[in-house]
Amino acid sequence: MTTIQDVARLAHVSVSSVSNVLNGKTDRMRAETHQRIADAIRKLGYRPNQAARQLKTGRTPIIGLLVPTTANPFFGQLAVAMEVHAQQQHGHRVLLCNTYRDKQQEAAMFDDLLAFGVGAVIVTSSISDERHIEAAIERGLAVVSFDLGLEPGAAAKHDHVLPDNRLAGELAASHLIEHGHTRLAFVMPKGLTYSRRHKIEGFMAAIDRAGPHVSGRVIEGKTASKFGDTELAGLGHELAATIAQMPSRPTGIVTVNDMMAIGLMAGIRRQGLSVPRDISVVGMDDLDISAYTSPPLTSVRMPIADMARTMVDRAILRLKEPSQAGEEIRFTPTLTIRDSVAAPTAASGSAGSAT
Amino acid sequence: MTTIQDVARLAHVSVSSVSNVLNGKTDRMRAETHQRIADAIRKLGYRPNQAARQLKTGRTPIIGLLVPTTANPFFGQLAVAMEVHAQQQHGHRVLLCNTYRDKQQEAAMFDDLLAFGVGAVIVTSSISDERHIEAAIERGLAVVSFDLGLEPGAAAKHDHVLPDNRLAGELAASHLIEHGHTRLAFVMPKGLTYSRRHKIEGFMAAIDRAGPHVSGRVIEGKTASKFGDTELAGLGHELAATIAQMPSRPTGIVTVNDMMAIGLMAGIRRQGLSVPRDISVVGMDDLDISAYTSPPLTSVRMPIADMARTMVDRAILRLKEPSQAGEEIRFTPTLTIRDSVAAPTAASGSAGSAT
Repeated sequence: MTTIQDVARLAHVSVSSVSNVLNGKTDRMRAETHQRIADAIRKLGYRPNQAARQLKTGRTPIIGLLVPTTANPFFGQLAVAMEVHAQQQHGHRVLLCNTYRDKQQEAAMFDDLLAFGVGAVIVTSSISDERHIEAAIERGLAVVSFDLGLEPGAAAKHDHVLPDNRLAGELAASHLIEHGHTRLAFVMPKGLTYSRRHKIEGFMAAIDRAGPHVSGRVIEGKTASKFGDTELAGLGHELAATIAQMPSRPTGIVTVNDMMAIGLMAGIRRQGLSVPRDISVVGMDDLDISAYTSPPLTSVRMPIADMARTMVDRAILRLKEPSQAGEEIRFTPTLTIRDSVAAPTAASGSAGSAT
Repeated sequence: MTTIQDVARLAHVSVSSVSNVLNGKTDRMRAETHQRIADAIRKLGYRPNQAARQLKTGRTPIIGLLVPTTANPFFGQLAVAMEVHAQQQHGHRVLLCNTYRDKQQEAAMFDDLLAFGVGAVIVTSSISDERHIEAAIERGLAVVSFDLGLEPGAAAKHDHVLPDNRLAGELAASHLIEHGHTRLAFVMPKGLTYSRRHKIEGFMAAIDRAGPHVSGRVIEGKTASKFGDTELAGLGHELAATIAQMPSRPTGIVTVNDMMAIGLMAGIRRQGLSVPRDISVVGMDDLDISAYTSPPLTSVRMPIADMARTMVDRAILRLKEPSQAGEEIRFTPTLTIRDSVAAPTAASGSAGSAT
């Protein structure tokens, strides 16, 4: 890599003369010398060492980004929206870490960010235990979390950005109830995260409100642990076999996200059943690809790009004003209606009705 | 953020004593003092400033990663595989940039990497014009490129990692020909990249080899420019309408990647046609989700994880041995057979045969 010494050598000047040009201190320099140094900088493609500058300003124009895995298109879309906004709007680059929702991975990334002089991090994880985040904040990291809410009455130590997951659960269940479904299920991998808990609460609230003729249950698949979100479609596919064999199976299903819905619908087809004739399905996220599934998936739309931009803006703001109180910023989901929901037929819901 | 001064104050010692502990120079230090400093470091969660260390070693344990966009699950999968391997195997973090295949974006990222003291970068882009990459190499960056090949006879200035795209095109076309298809098409967005050119060459080679009764053509959609790879499914969906209306439409289609195939199959359904009864489809990439499309997609599998690990290993190797000659490392794709290809029926291929 080109050094300041290389530039000085080529321009036949001292290192401090080059340094003066780099720092704009050229008023007492001969025009010819200035020109020669500028030419050498250009010719060698020299860039002043950011590390040296960083020691002075104490800040690296980088923010950290933790996601469970970019292999899940939801986080892939979120990551690109954040990275592009951080770069174009704030001149910050993004250091990426795929954590698979592992707390040790998250903590190790916090350590590295502090060591690199990075001041802010966005954590998309929804691990309900926030102690490692609090420890990072105490060590000076500005944190914005995604999909974690403030516990009522708790003091906010960082900014919480999230969709209204309760409303998401309500929207999905209500849509099925409006179509006449009375046996509903919420399908997810094993393990409660903050956001899953709220989605289920909203789902159950809509069912309770509808009256005693409507019932809802939670169906958990295997734990999506190590390989996390890449397995979600596979888990959905597996669960379809279980659901198809249930003696009084649900006719309307809400999935925790679109990846599970995509796998579930494929599994339902494989069981010789049809969506939405035998089972209606509502996803959550409204991924780009969900418009192209068969049938096109009705899904609760999360405002991914808006949430991404807000998280980056808050992270940068916190760098400038670290003492500001943390806030909770909730975004409102909406329902994107496509073709995966219909009224239940007389035959649907009884095992063996496959045609 | 905790400074070395904070540690010194808490331990009631000088900054240079703390520095001695950090640098392992403790043989002439009293055990009690050593212990007190170690306790203070632990208590304050102090991490020596990476920027200061970097000035000594001249290297930041970060590699750069350029992708068109992580919103395309192919690059989302590639990014997670690279990031995890870089971190777990080599202790390097990954600085991410979504370039949308824009040369200016790529060049700007090279500038920033050099300024941050980052020594190596992986470029997944397949922009055929490599001059900006060559410029970055001349300025001292170690580069590993993905999906770009060496021109015959050219000297390798960096490592080229790529799947054998020619073979990919051949595998896909041959599979359709073996099923009896004689009117084939290769579907892609407008614009030739290095990898698209090779996929088409392989596709046409298989057709030529089959004899004069088999024909193949290239069908280009709109340019997938600004929003790049997120639009690919949408482009495929649009093209289905055009293809359905062709007077003598192809019965077997190869798409440049799975995202286009997913959109194309949805579009074919929307035209009242069926896959594979009316039109057979072969994708490329074999994404996780392609097992769950309707019908499950036959696709040319690219060894994503192997390629990702190799790219990271080569980037790290180049940091250690920058003078080593660049190599071209090709990976062999395979065919994953699912349900989107069947023999053409008598009716298929004629416009108006929709049922």
